[in-house]
Amino acid sequence: MDKVRIGIIGAGRIGKIHAENVLRLPNAEVVAISDPFADDNLREWAAARGIGIVTQDSEDVMNNPAISAVFICSPTDTHVPLIKRAAAAGKHIFCEKPISMDIAQTKEAIEAAEAVGVKLQVGFNRRFDHNFQRVRELVQSGQIGDAHLVKITSRDPAPPGKEYIRSSGGIFMDMMIHDFDMARFLSGSEAEEVHAYGSVLVDPVFAEFGDVDTAIVTIRFANGALGVIDNSRKAVYGYDQRVEVFGSGGSAAISNDYPNTAEIHTAESVRRDKPLHFFLERYNDAYIQETVQFITCILENRDVPVSGYDGYQAELMALAAKRSLQLGRPVKLAEAYEFTKQAHVKEGIQ
Amino acid sequence: MDKVRIGIIGAGRIGKIHAENVLRLPNAEVVAISDPFADDNLREWAAARGIGIVTQDSEDVMNNPAISAVFICSPTDTHVPLIKRAAAAGKHIFCEKPISMDIAQTKEAIEAAEAVGVKLQVGFNRRFDHNFQRVRELVQSGQIGDAHLVKITSRDPAPPGKEYIRSSGGIFMDMMIHDFDMARFLSGSEAEEVHAYGSVLVDPVFAEFGDVDTAIVTIRFANGALGVIDNSRKAVYGYDQRVEVFGSGGSAAISNDYPNTAEIHTAESVRRDKPLHFFLERYNDAYIQETVQFITCILENRDVPVSGYDGYQAELMALAAKRSLQLGRPVKLAEAYEFTKQAHVKEGIQ
Amino acid sequence: MDKVRIGIIGAGRIGKIHAENVLRLPNAEVVAISDPFADDNLREWAAARGIGIVTQDSEDVMNNPAISAVFICSPTDTHVPLIKRAAAAGKHIFCEKPISMDIAQTKEAIEAAEAVGVKLQVGFNRRFDHNFQRVRELVQSGQIGDAHLVKITSRDPAPPGKEYIRSSGGIFMDMMIHDFDMARFLSGSEAEEVHAYGSVLVDPVFAEFGDVDTAIVTIRFANGALGVIDNSRKAVYGYDQRVEVFGSGGSAAISNDYPNTAEIHTAESVRRDKPLHFFLERYNDAYIQETVQFITCILENRDVPVSGYDGYQAELMALAAKRSLQLGRPVKLAEAYEFTKQAHVKEGIQ
Amino acid sequence: MDKVRIGIIGAGRIGKIHAENVLRLPNAEVVAISDPFADDNLREWAAARGIGIVTQDSEDVMNNPAISAVFICSPTDTHVPLIKRAAAAGKHIFCEKPISMDIAQTKEAIEAAEAVGVKLQVGFNRRFDHNFQRVRELVQSGQIGDAHLVKITSRDPAPPGKEYIRSSGGIFMDMMIHDFDMARFLSGSEAEEVHAYGSVLVDPVFAEFGDVDTAIVTIRFANGALGVIDNSRKAVYGYDQRVEVFGSGGSAAISNDYPNTAEIHTAESVRRDKPLHFFLERYNDAYIQETVQFITCILENRDVPVSGYDGYQAELMALAAKRSLQLGRPVKLAEAYEFTKQAHVKEGIQ
Repeated sequence: MDKVRIGIIGAGRIGKIHAENVLRLPNAEVVAISDPFADDNLREWAAARGIGIVTQDSEDVMNNPAISAVFICSPTDTHVPLIKRAAAAGKHIFCEKPISMDIAQTKEAIEAAEAVGVKLQVGFNRRFDHNFQRVRELVQSGQIGDAHLVKITSRDPAPPGKEYIRSSGGIFMDMMIHDFDMARFLSGSEAEEVHAYGSVLVDPVFAEFGDVDTAIVTIRFANGALGVIDNSRKAVYGYDQRVEVFGSGGSAAISNDYPNTAEIHTAESVRRDKPLHFFLERYNDAYIQETVQFITCILENRDVPVSGYDGYQAELMALAAKRSLQLGRPVKLAEAYEFTKQAHVKEGIQ
Repeated sequence: MDKVRIGIIGAGRIGKIHAENVLRLPNAEVVAISDPFADDNLREWAAARGIGIVTQDSEDVMNNPAISAVFICSPTDTHVPLIKRAAAAGKHIFCEKPISMDIAQTKEAIEAAEAVGVKLQVGFNRRFDHNFQRVRELVQSGQIGDAHLVKITSRDPAPPGKEYIRSSGGIFMDMMIHDFDMARFLSGSEAEEVHAYGSVLVDPVFAEFGDVDTAIVTIRFANGALGVIDNSRKAVYGYDQRVEVFGSGGSAAISNDYPNTAEIHTAESVRRDKPLHFFLERYNDAYIQETVQFITCILENRDVPVSGYDGYQAELMALAAKRSLQLGRPVKLAEAYEFTKQAHVKEGIQ
Repeated sequence: MDKVRIGIIGAGRIGKIHAENVLRLPNAEVVAISDPFADDNLREWAAARGIGIVTQDSEDVMNNPAISAVFICSPTDTHVPLIKRAAAAGKHIFCEKPISMDIAQTKEAIEAAEAVGVKLQVGFNRRFDHNFQRVRELVQSGQIGDAHLVKITSRDPAPPGKEYIRSSGGIFMDMMIHDFDMARFLSGSEAEEVHAYGSVLVDPVFAEFGDVDTAIVTIRFANGALGVIDNSRKAVYGYDQRVEVFGSGGSAAISNDYPNTAEIHTAESVRRDKPLHFFLERYNDAYIQETVQFITCILENRDVPVSGYDGYQAELMALAAKRSLQLGRPVKLAEAYEFTKQAHVKEGIQ
Repeated sequence: MDKVRIGIIGAGRIGKIHAENVLRLPNAEVVAISDPFADDNLREWAAARGIGIVTQDSEDVMNNPAISAVFICSPTDTHVPLIKRAAAAGKHIFCEKPISMDIAQTKEAIEAAEAVGVKLQVGFNRRFDHNFQRVRELVQSGQIGDAHLVKITSRDPAPPGKEYIRSSGGIFMDMMIHDFDMARFLSGSEAEEVHAYGSVLVDPVFAEFGDVDTAIVTIRFANGALGVIDNSRKAVYGYDQRVEVFGSGGSAAISNDYPNTAEIHTAESVRRDKPLHFFLERYNDAYIQETVQFITCILENRDVPVSGYDGYQAELMALAAKRSLQLGRPVKLAEAYEFTKQAHVKEGIQ
């Protein structure tokens, strides 16, 4: 194969971003895009980019023999059936995070892809960011010794709308899941147990859905290292994305990215502009890089850099954190899966 | 009174520092210093500073009618009897932290001072530091809105010796107690519950005494705000003292103090010298300021800036954190006092 | 016109960069590329990018009626004849800096473009950089009051090769010319006089050509403001691009851009990675933006953001600085043009 | 000698600062203070500090056999006669900068001190500052290779009053003289030639006295290195004191000192408090250190760290800069002395 021909499933914001990023690559091509709400606007958008097929039915993508890989960018509750369907069609899969809200189903989806040997990459884009990458390198190369503490700050500039919150799966599954993945990525160890505190301090609407908008989760890793993640749905100064890994030989910490380096001295203060405000501008390059890597791994038949297992583990941490908040005690990851099974029994899902 | 005449009890490192700092003040005088191990060296040291009385018996200080205030700088297990004795003698009291390892006794000591109306200030020197003060001002003045998250990093450059560790009372009571006080100082709210994770990652000697050298404690405050403190006994790059308060209107964060601002660009990197390495150089001014305030409060008959209650609350947080680590679950401060009473029963102390 | 059809003249590094940048734009197209050394490699490169015409003769570009604008990216001594030729052919012109080494000829070229009404933009890419732009905005909006001092640091990571140095025109015309333009761009005033100091400290090869590798030039602006530029051909830590404008109401300063924000604390120091090392990565976005602006100005028939006059003035400053170094005294810009005329007489050029 | 007994001449702001700093030292004592305007206020101030003698006549200090060193803190025009008088009396001398406004007289004063072998230290306090010291160490230890460029920024928060300006000797002798000394201190080379630009941009009052309030001076050092100093009488954001030394192996740069490290993120910007505002708080420790060094050098009979020659050279640079501004051309230091002699002839001083 000299070129990966791609179908995009889901033409929302993130679907379009992936499409645009693929379009830049010399070794990939967007053949089709599907969305239940595909309309003239989408057709125009696609035509301007040389995307030949626009359809309302994802089956048109799945059945197209020219397409060898799909990007699943549709709502979370459709991810698992689409992964299974794509696997059945022998197509490589890039799936947005989380794979699902239901850890058992996530497992099934991963197994479906493994069974037929297609690649499955999960959209933890931050792993490809220049800052996080550098911290990872510093840790992996032993430059700060053994990791003792992993600290992650992740705050959004503004909370999402009510409809989004309703179906988001909660702060741990929707927002902190990126940080759970980062905790594993940076520490080089698996989490064994987590403890969560959460509050509704930004907007009472979160309480309506049993959700919180402010949370601190601590983590005990298998190797004895400890971690902490703090999330807020609203940082008035913009998108706040920092990490620190502290180890026996020193520490590595990243601060935010800024639109410029200008420092302004006045009679009042010394100030600079706020950090980059939104995840799309902050992680623009990371989104491109995850796509580049996915395509390259297909063409060179290598393991993808973010596996289904990575997606599964982060979901397990999110689930454990959620239960910890509900139960008011630390929860082991080993327990978390059991909870789900019980829930299935209770809710009659199995 | 135009001048406060002072007796120093305990001539170790911190006792001498307080003595030197008092000696700078125009409105205070060091009349006597006592230490069970007072010897010719101490007599020489005192003579060079015009301190007239050097004694092995603290009773010589307590019985001296010229002395109106004492600095209790002796080992922790002597604090409570000395506070009671000083109170009985009608002397104002500055006591190093913690007041005691036993919360019930701490309560008794505070009540003893209150009963006779002498002032009791606890040695939480960091409250007087230029950086922490500035964050407190920013929070109190509403410049960052309501506090949502309080994050404190506190790491020592190197662990203490084995003998120190043995009698230290553990990381929460010995080291994190400063951070517990800071959490209250900065958040403006009381802690309701804490959860602790701890590990032995720096030196196995800590495990010998049932202690840890690395810890993360999370806090749920009464007003819904959340907090987190991380401690390590060994940061190879020096003394690490940072806080961040994040609120509805923004955040205020302090970084470390450095010996100079020089930035060195070479073919390898851009670097600067390490932060100030030791608490004595880092908090030099804060030690002076706490003394200035104590003296001023006596002379002007004002409330001291760090009360016995402040000492008590920080000890309660330390106790709750210790129990949390032992029990593997969050512990309410309200529970912590109960634990102690039960322990007393069990251990036959009452 | 809905699209600007472009011919690139000169297929060296910078010619290819401009071609690639134009290729990203929806409203422009690269129709042809010419280079006296055009070969199969270039033909392959062009074919892969859909550039239909590759030729050794720039006349093929000039005579092509489909082409409405040219990018002149050939050696400096060809700029003036090519500008005149393009003007005669009615094509808009983007010309790399400097327009020429001979200020009188530069004037002629500008007049040739003006006479026929084609646009002429000069390649001062730094004007489009996010950092410099922000300083300009701060100055223009009055946020730092009236400008009193303009300070520019500009250092290369490593000196060019001997052949390059020989024909470079010297440090003022080749390297500091960007900074002369920046001085005008940021101060909002014209230079009246300059004074130059220069030394050969990096490599004796510069002395062979009567050139220097280290220079400081000070500037007296028409409005009384003062400026200083320092250049070095070799900063071992990388590309160093900083400015500060100090005014009656404060100052605005920019520091370098870095590949990441990671700060590494070890037992030795606190360090970070070196700044972005090379002008192509540092000014990548600025190169794109200057192209975007040029195309937009053609399509909307607006004045270009960097005019021929801007190129002329920067050359005049470079010329004055060169003479100042030769004569050992400050040189007025008004004098500089006279020097050239005398030189013409002496060298029999006229 | 176990203790240096000191007489302070001149009881203005700086005289009192030196007195207070000497009073802290265990190996020095302030015996007397003289000032033509000595009054009850001064007597009270002295009494509170245990200074026994207060007099209106400096001869009382000069004639006192108990006094072995004097601090000359009187107006500049009295420095030379007082140095000669103190030398004649065999007393060591600490003299505030500049020694005089007249380079020939400065020479005579230095020679007078040398002739009798008393020490003469000049008050270039910045040499003792933690930041400048660190840059000096980095340069001297070869960590940045050979120095190529020395850049000094020095700006005051607000201009002095009219009376001060009238008798200040002008910006170069009054303000930039510190920076001239720093240029020599940091470069490790002597200046050969300087060129000055100056403007009146802050306050027209400077023009009344033939002075400027904004200046940039460039320097050519004997070893080929180049330097630049910029001064402004008014930086609204406070006292601005920065240097950078750039060399073959890298660069060392210092930024300002701040009252705290707090960084405040809000919806508007990221800001911090302004730098330390005034030279007394900024250089508090440096003033103490220069005194410590002076006393130690007397007691241990070592060369003082800032000699009369250092004072002379800085004055010569100031003089050359002043002439450069007047003449509109660079001026060699070798010329500067000649100018003075001519001026003497012209003005009939000789």
